Amino acid sequence: MSTKNQKWLLKQRPDGMPKTSDFAYVEEDRPEPNEGEFLIKTLYISLDPAQRGWMSDNKKSYIPPIPLGDPVRSFLLGQVETSKHPDYQEGDYVYAMLSWQTYHISNGKGITKINAQGIPVEYFMGALGMQGATAYFGLTEVAQAKEGEVIVISGAAGAVGSLVGQMAKILGLKVIGIAGSEAKCQWMEETLGFDGSINYKSDEISKKLRSLAPEGVDIYFENAGGSLTQIVLNQMRLKGRIAICGLISEYNGLNPPTTISQLGQLIAQRIRIEGFLVTDFMKDWGKAFQQMGHWIAQGKLKVRLEVVEGFEKTPETFNWLFEGKNTGKLTVKV
Amino acid sequence: MSTKNQKWLLKQRPDGMPKTSDFAYVEEDRPEPNEGEFLIKTLYISLDPAQRGWMSDNKKSYIPPIPLGDPVRSFLLGQVETSKHPDYQEGDYVYAMLSWQTYHISNGKGITKINAQGIPVEYFMGALGMQGATAYFGLTEVAQAKEGEVIVISGAAGAVGSLVGQMAKILGLKVIGIAGSEAKCQWMEETLGFDGSINYKSDEISKKLRSLAPEGVDIYFENAGGSLTQIVLNQMRLKGRIAICGLISEYNGLNPPTTISQLGQLIAQRIRIEGFLVTDFMKDWGKAFQQMGHWIAQGKLKVRLEVVEGFEKTPETFNWLFEGKNTGKLTVKV
Repeated sequence: MSTKNQKWLLKQRPDGMPKTSDFAYVEEDRPEPNEGEFLIKTLYISLDPAQRGWMSDNKKSYIPPIPLGDPVRSFLLGQVETSKHPDYQEGDYVYAMLSWQTYHISNGKGITKINAQGIPVEYFMGALGMQGATAYFGLTEVAQAKEGEVIVISGAAGAVGSLVGQMAKILGLKVIGIAGSEAKCQWMEETLGFDGSINYKSDEISKKLRSLAPEGVDIYFENAGGSLTQIVLNQMRLKGRIAICGLISEYNGLNPPTTISQLGQLIAQRIRIEGFLVTDFMKDWGKAFQQMGHWIAQGKLKVRLEVVEGFEKTPETFNWLFEGKNTGKLTVKV
Repeated sequence: MSTKNQKWLLKQRPDGMPKTSDFAYVEEDRPEPNEGEFLIKTLYISLDPAQRGWMSDNKKSYIPPIPLGDPVRSFLLGQVETSKHPDYQEGDYVYAMLSWQTYHISNGKGITKINAQGIPVEYFMGALGMQGATAYFGLTEVAQAKEGEVIVISGAAGAVGSLVGQMAKILGLKVIGIAGSEAKCQWMEETLGFDGSINYKSDEISKKLRSLAPEGVDIYFENAGGSLTQIVLNQMRLKGRIAICGLISEYNGLNPPTTISQLGQLIAQRIRIEGFLVTDFMKDWGKAFQQMGHWIAQGKLKVRLEVVEGFEKTPETFNWLFEGKNTGKLTVKV
């Protein structure tokens, strides 16, 4: 057990794509738990597009910005190392919104204890955590997916998108994934069983979408934004739904904001566009994880982690999200 | 009883604002009903923004365009003049989607018989017809209005908007109407009892909205489009809803299409945008009319018609909608 706690602090608010110099690496003595507390050792740090928003303070958001000088807020998977808390034992796995640090002291507030039951514990980092719940409720509650419908997903090879597509297949939808490389497209079609894929960097998106879904699109699950939104909207059919989960293309402020301008079509086709946050469904997360756990155990739902080893690489790895370098859930193994 | 049937035909598809020369006036012999048919004399022609869309054929719509050479499709209120149909008697009032003609032959298909029960029959042209149902279901079903919420309405002095605002007041909402003249604003505040109004031609819209609704906006009922949509969206609060009923500002193709570009706010604030058509709620229209009839009888819901006399003035009067000249429901009295 190390006697040091390593931290990555937010030194300055990034302008555009985050740079390593926006963060400061520090080492401190490892903290010790008091009575009623326990010490968590970080195992996997979850790297998610939403964190980019938390680093800025220029927009009204659903959560306060990360204070300058604080360790970078993050979800993570950890293990209890020592405990003076009656409900937590050494060796317990936990999932929580904490920060880019190798050790954390907790009194249990906001901590989810994990009962892995034979499922690899790192699955609880995404599939049976934040991203899984996002995918599940976005698909079933926000988009109201129904058997026989056609769904298009952007960011479809990412942590959320890859789960949305697989669950949509399980529910009997026709699934078309949009991603940014041939390797990702191949993975979605051959490994995940999607019905079709579009490489937004090389395909003529509108034309390919029309050939894959000549009947039109019922659901668009939006992770990316940019010009894709309008392109897919133009091909939606009666009573279509757009679930806006994320807009990763605009998080660094380098691309123009996502714009839609065919609102008349929303009337003619009675289309609904809805933004959502997974935290709105928190009381039902357990139900989602139980269902998804079954599907994982049955081999119907595949989970892919993109694991980078080494806490020191956390800031540079974070940018993989915006460079499209990860397939599946991006994580740093500490 | 005239022996002539007067008609306004769609001669060519309007480019921009419709011109009288886009229509052709013709007179024919009045038709006679056969067995199983009846003759309707047109009393009031309903002039509605949606008709502008029906005159064009360059957009996918919810209804086929009006064929060139046909009389202009329109809702109207009429009276049975002679009948060879067992269910319709001379003197019966009827409401239907027919066309710009002074006489119509019908077999009853698509015809709603009106039982006025002491309510002025012309109310059935709008308040207890298409516009009333649009307002009622847009407010209660699409926007899911709840007591204590703040609603902003564009086109608020129009046929639909003025009903939406009054019903929202009855349901206990705070109501802010947007319109294009001081006279309309005064009418909304003093006669209809709205809590505030914005003259989009002379007020600084964003600033005035913030002063009228410092707590933010829960519902935006959209009849107008243009730059208003984004301005109101920027001031919406958590779980806000935008019900897109109409976009009159863009129907003539003279203004840039309505554009929204803060989709990130849809996520942060979990906002829902939904287009709708009143025909989707047709099975429940009766329920709405019963409720609204009560409110009218109680004096809680005021109906204002802007009546222009003379069938020959129909095409020129139609443009009042786009010039903002009417307050309340625009109609031609034949």
